[in-house]
Amino acid sequence: MGMTIVEKILAKASGKKEVSPGDIVMANIDVAMVHDITGPLTVNTLKEYGIEKVWNPEKIVILFDHQVPADSIKAAENHILMRKFVKEQGIKYFYDIREGVCHQVLPEKGHIAPGEVVVGADSHTCTHGAFGAFATGIGSTDMAHVFATGKLWFKVPETIYFNITGDLQPYVTSKDVILSIIGEVGVDGATYKACQFGGETVKKMSIASRMTMTNMAIEMGGKTGIIEPDEKTIQYVKEAMKKHGTERPFEIVKGDEDAEFAEVYEIEADKIEPVFACPHNVDNVKPAREVAGKPIDQVFIGSCTNGRLEDLRMAIEIIDKHGGIADDVRVIVTPASREEYLKALKEGIIEKFLKYGCVVTNPSCSACMGSLYGVLGPGEVCVSTSNRNFRGRQGSLEAEIYLASPITAAACAVKGELVDPRDLE
Amino acid sequence: MGMTIVEKILAKASGKKEVSPGDIVMANIDVAMVHDITGPLTVNTLKEYGIEKVWNPEKIVILFDHQVPADSIKAAENHILMRKFVKEQGIKYFYDIREGVCHQVLPEKGHIAPGEVVVGADSHTCTHGAFGAFATGIGSTDMAHVFATGKLWFKVPETIYFNITGDLQPYVTSKDVILSIIGEVGVDGATYKACQFGGETVKKMSIASRMTMTNMAIEMGGKTGIIEPDEKTIQYVKEAMKKHGTERPFEIVKGDEDAEFAEVYEIEADKIEPVFACPHNVDNVKPAREVAGKPIDQVFIGSCTNGRLEDLRMAIEIIDKHGGIADDVRVIVTPASREEYLKALKEGIIEKFLKYGCVVTNPSCSACMGSLYGVLGPGEVCVSTSNRNFRGRQGSLEAEIYLASPITAAACAVKGELVDPRDLE
Repeated sequence: MGMTIVEKILAKASGKKEVSPGDIVMANIDVAMVHDITGPLTVNTLKEYGIEKVWNPEKIVILFDHQVPADSIKAAENHILMRKFVKEQGIKYFYDIREGVCHQVLPEKGHIAPGEVVVGADSHTCTHGAFGAFATGIGSTDMAHVFATGKLWFKVPETIYFNITGDLQPYVTSKDVILSIIGEVGVDGATYKACQFGGETVKKMSIASRMTMTNMAIEMGGKTGIIEPDEKTIQYVKEAMKKHGTERPFEIVKGDEDAEFAEVYEIEADKIEPVFACPHNVDNVKPAREVAGKPIDQVFIGSCTNGRLEDLRMAIEIIDKHGGIADDVRVIVTPASREEYLKALKEGIIEKFLKYGCVVTNPSCSACMGSLYGVLGPGEVCVSTSNRNFRGRQGSLEAEIYLASPITAAACAVKGELVDPRDLE
Repeated sequence: MGMTIVEKILAKASGKKEVSPGDIVMANIDVAMVHDITGPLTVNTLKEYGIEKVWNPEKIVILFDHQVPADSIKAAENHILMRKFVKEQGIKYFYDIREGVCHQVLPEKGHIAPGEVVVGADSHTCTHGAFGAFATGIGSTDMAHVFATGKLWFKVPETIYFNITGDLQPYVTSKDVILSIIGEVGVDGATYKACQFGGETVKKMSIASRMTMTNMAIEMGGKTGIIEPDEKTIQYVKEAMKKHGTERPFEIVKGDEDAEFAEVYEIEADKIEPVFACPHNVDNVKPAREVAGKPIDQVFIGSCTNGRLEDLRMAIEIIDKHGGIADDVRVIVTPASREEYLKALKEGIIEKFLKYGCVVTNPSCSACMGSLYGVLGPGEVCVSTSNRNFRGRQGSLEAEIYLASPITAAACAVKGELVDPRDLE
């Protein structure tokens, strides 16, 4: 009986020839990441247990992205605590307030490689499955165990395979694909399962578009999202490692031909339309045309889901084509990382956003987390390219968040209301 | 007996031929400004008093700059309240979260003209004296009176005249001049007095450099800072009005030759050195060399004092010359306005800041106000181009703020410690 890519990675990481869904394995961790919100909990737990040295200071990545620059004395204190820990432990890879969102920065700096096991104290760590790694979010106290031992147990998950075929229609992006999938599967439809995305449509997608897909696997309960590595993956990973001096050998792992999936979804990409995930659940997915016409207050273009160069390009193209944004709409643009910001700047994209009156913030989690830039007040409506629209996620419990692609979000910014980008005059 | 420029403006505004220091006048207000922190108090006071209509919706400017984008539900609620007020009252000039710091945006959009009376519910409203207006900060409840009636009483202030002559030495800026003056006069040495800056050195200064001077008049207790208008002023004001459709007639007011000053300071500009205003008072001014060597954690380049294009230019020139910033220092750069941001972007300055790992935020009050970007933790040391170093101003009561020019701040960023920019290797 063959194994899926996830099973093979977990077998390799736990020194086994074969594993099956349901097996408990103790896996060696290749990369362990904490950020400024979760890191202090991990560090304090380590202290509580009297652990003096981390298992391997070269396999831990610490990054500040949530409250950057510090927005409160408490945040500043957390940063101070973590900077001290970095020095004490000799943590090799530390990214202070300047770099951007962890799930963008880690691959960008060459910390993510196919076939590896990545854990992060952040729920969207599943993003890194786009590179053919097994990547999952864990709690801060579990992370203390990883920091101490370099190992963590996993129950080998079953895999759901999403076979995506056909061409995406104009104005439809990978965000519409993943939202449509979540709408079908439901927010708990893939609980503790690996969500593997494949098929010719995925093959054709850019790395950025793939990351948008794996990023949201957790939104249907998935233990991880994963895409088998191909030439694009290898090129990206090698270039990133070379650029940042993080070269190391890695092994391309792919699933067996006869791997068994718990379920297979056949997704016809050409039938997917622009959609919104409507308040207050990510699986409340509706065709954009069905909810069009509702006035909006804010548009957020950014996050680990859709804050990359290709997303910013797609958004500005729409805004540029229509000559600007609606008067009463605030548009907050947050590049996912400093590198993506610089690329966008060189292409003239940042200048255009500014000219049109968008607010361009420093790379960070920004409005996605609801406690820094662009908090929503009661009754406000936001179209967001991020990954969660839970009640209160971006501020007031009485605010509404509609998740959408950068194209759709930009179209809404132009129109000042919910709209299907295909219908924008 | 002749009158000073301030006396003449207040006489004109109150319909009198002549006024003397100590007179109480009821002046007509030309421009009344509130921002997102002070505006809600004004609006609620108006409501409390049952005032239904403001005196003149074309003379009120409302602008959001302190908590932008909204950083809390409370901030979002304040914004909602103010936007509603703007619509209800038909306020003509409203600048939402995107434009930048009020004291930069008002002149930039042509709202400030020589000879006028400007009140703002913000203590650094005195900045606008750089354009030969009488400009002063007032409380939010006083502002409610202005909104209702268009008038406010003033006791005509005495004027201190600072006659500044000689050439500034390399690495010395108008910020060093005003800090040196405050060091001499003391934080309450000019209480309720108009601080008039003149002399050949001021004549030679750019508008931006002059704004840095008048901005800080309040830091020695001044009722206002003021500089008599000249060709540079007129050109700036006319261009700003033309660009933004805010043209209106204005009258150039200058003081009489035989005006009487309460005090005259003779300032020799060529003797001024780079200085720091050391913790925790703005008049604790010391030559940079005297305190050099202290390690720093953060540098803030921005604010209504020093966040303009010329400031960003000066800062990046130093950083560029020395090839970057110190590893352990966070540098937060906040252009004072969207226009200044765009200019800096076109000159390649923003790209350079990003490349060197500085954090470039959206135009706003930013770190100056200590509750949004770049809050300091206990024990942290910050070099800031802003105007106040009071204990706790930028976060923790145990943090230290050293005020300096953009050149000195950039030099500290390069060195990672307090330094005189002339001594940077």
